Amino acid sequence: MKMLINVAESVVSDALRGMAACHPELTVDVENRVIVRRDAPVADKVALVSGGGSGHEPLHGGFVGRGMLDAACPGEVFTSPVPDQMVRAAAAVDSGKGVLFVVKNYTGDVLNFDMAAELAEDEGIQVAKVLVNDDAAVTDSLYTAGRRGTGATLFVEKIAGAAAEEGMPLERVEAIARRVNELSRSFGVALSACSTPAKGGPTFDLPPGELELGVGIHGEPGRERRAMMTSREIADYAVHVVLEDLPPDNPVLVLVNGMGATPQLELYGFAAEVHRVLGERRIAVARTLVGNYVTSLDMAGASVTLCQVDEELLRLWDAPVRTAGLRWGC
Amino acid sequence: MKMLINVAESVVSDALRGMAACHPELTVDVENRVIVRRDAPVADKVALVSGGGSGHEPLHGGFVGRGMLDAACPGEVFTSPVPDQMVRAAAAVDSGKGVLFVVKNYTGDVLNFDMAAELAEDEGIQVAKVLVNDDAAVTDSLYTAGRRGTGATLFVEKIAGAAAEEGMPLERVEAIARRVNELSRSFGVALSACSTPAKGGPTFDLPPGELELGVGIHGEPGRERRAMMTSREIADYAVHVVLEDLPPDNPVLVLVNGMGATPQLELYGFAAEVHRVLGERRIAVARTLVGNYVTSLDMAGASVTLCQVDEELLRLWDAPVRTAGLRWGC
Repeated sequence: MKMLINVAESVVSDALRGMAACHPELTVDVENRVIVRRDAPVADKVALVSGGGSGHEPLHGGFVGRGMLDAACPGEVFTSPVPDQMVRAAAAVDSGKGVLFVVKNYTGDVLNFDMAAELAEDEGIQVAKVLVNDDAAVTDSLYTAGRRGTGATLFVEKIAGAAAEEGMPLERVEAIARRVNELSRSFGVALSACSTPAKGGPTFDLPPGELELGVGIHGEPGRERRAMMTSREIADYAVHVVLEDLPPDNPVLVLVNGMGATPQLELYGFAAEVHRVLGERRIAVARTLVGNYVTSLDMAGASVTLCQVDEELLRLWDAPVRTAGLRWGC
Repeated sequence: MKMLINVAESVVSDALRGMAACHPELTVDVENRVIVRRDAPVADKVALVSGGGSGHEPLHGGFVGRGMLDAACPGEVFTSPVPDQMVRAAAAVDSGKGVLFVVKNYTGDVLNFDMAAELAEDEGIQVAKVLVNDDAAVTDSLYTAGRRGTGATLFVEKIAGAAAEEGMPLERVEAIARRVNELSRSFGVALSACSTPAKGGPTFDLPPGELELGVGIHGEPGRERRAMMTSREIADYAVHVVLEDLPPDNPVLVLVNGMGATPQLELYGFAAEVHRVLGERRIAVARTLVGNYVTSLDMAGASVTLCQVDEELLRLWDAPVRTAGLRWGC
């Protein structure tokens, strides 16, 4: 598998050098692997810190900036960052109002963020945590006890980030983050496996003519494999799973997310089918985002995330954001 | 080759239905294949219309909106739109101040936009045209007499779009568009071939372990094939070709563009190498954009576009833009 890299060992550091070069509004500590908004700590503001294995970009580093994360800690590809990175990030962004850790539910991330929270509190930083576990496909998968954290991470980071930017206190930002996670569900499909630089080839085997329904963002197995389906059939299946789990009381934010290698032309066609199913179910769509946001390196496929929103959450979603990966209003 | 589609025949229409569903700020005529900003015609504003074969998204439909294009006409995959689409688009957006056609230099596009300009003028619409031909790799390639139009299209559409939004007259918007094209050069590489829905598999043959240096955005042949190179070597080669053609007098805008299937992690590592080469050549970088902007379906690879900017062009680049594919400041 050909890759646009130097050597596998330097992939994360090289990308961080690129972030540093391209985004003067960020402070990138390449050696210690921490990405921080340059104006941090922002006075009187709760700070948001997230992180996880690399390979899901723009998540999380591409979501650092005004109105979203204050810092992100990238681990090696598909590998949790270490507590030292998280503590360093928390110390860099804490204004005294406390820090919220946004943690995707993978065993390594959970353990490391737990340890980091203790260490940061030892240093006098008030820490709260929110666990993102939105994947409706499976419980208890490879790397995970309970549901996996996937596309809803974007909704949690954006909406809680806006709440923090408005000056809300830590308990309130935490409560909003928790609410967004509880109101979100995702379902993903893989048409091809992803290849990690370390392995140099596909990390799992997906035969020609088959797709994986319910795949995780590291290629973890989903619910079942089937013979290749149409965009229409995939949308019916995915939205059905999500809605079974999420009783539709309110309008929804929709994320139609590319896994990395699926052309935007196909993503928009898929988005049309997702909207069709939601229309048939009489579910109102408040906003839709289409693109590669929570990726799995070069995997072909897509995921759907729905997040039910009331007026407050929608207002926070629409609030200005200025990051490398998501930007509007400023 | 598995694709997230219904049938090959409906790929473009399906994507347009998706654009319509996801972007209420656009008017999408699915049947006639025209995407228009909803507030068009904007009073007293020169209008910009572009278009080309589908498969390069977000180009062009994703660049319709305030501060960029007023309308776009998508053709079939890798096939020029027809004059009727262009005339329809021009009529929908002309405020009486005239229309600028932004045309990538491919024989089919050039002929069809020429015919559309005549037809539109017969209807009393004043039309100017700018040809984008920035690809430094080759002259006279498959589909093209002269240089191909690639990444600079984004710079032309953004900067001329901002000029139009400021209220400049047609001759001035046209002159700025022409200047941006003249000050821009691109070079792309392919690590894998792209697959069109109609063909259902790769459109050209690129052996394992080789890359195509100077590839076009439809997979057209470039300068040479070589054994796979590192990100560092590719950046040295690509930037060298671009700079040979573009004497570096001013700071540059840099586009590090993904061809569609290259992970963002790799693109940022490549961006670091591009910045390193520019630093060695003592060329100042004004702004950098990294991502999938001018794509070739699911091709793996990347291109570099440099655009020299004076104060006016940089101000227009920084001006607010609100499209599906590029958005800031509003």
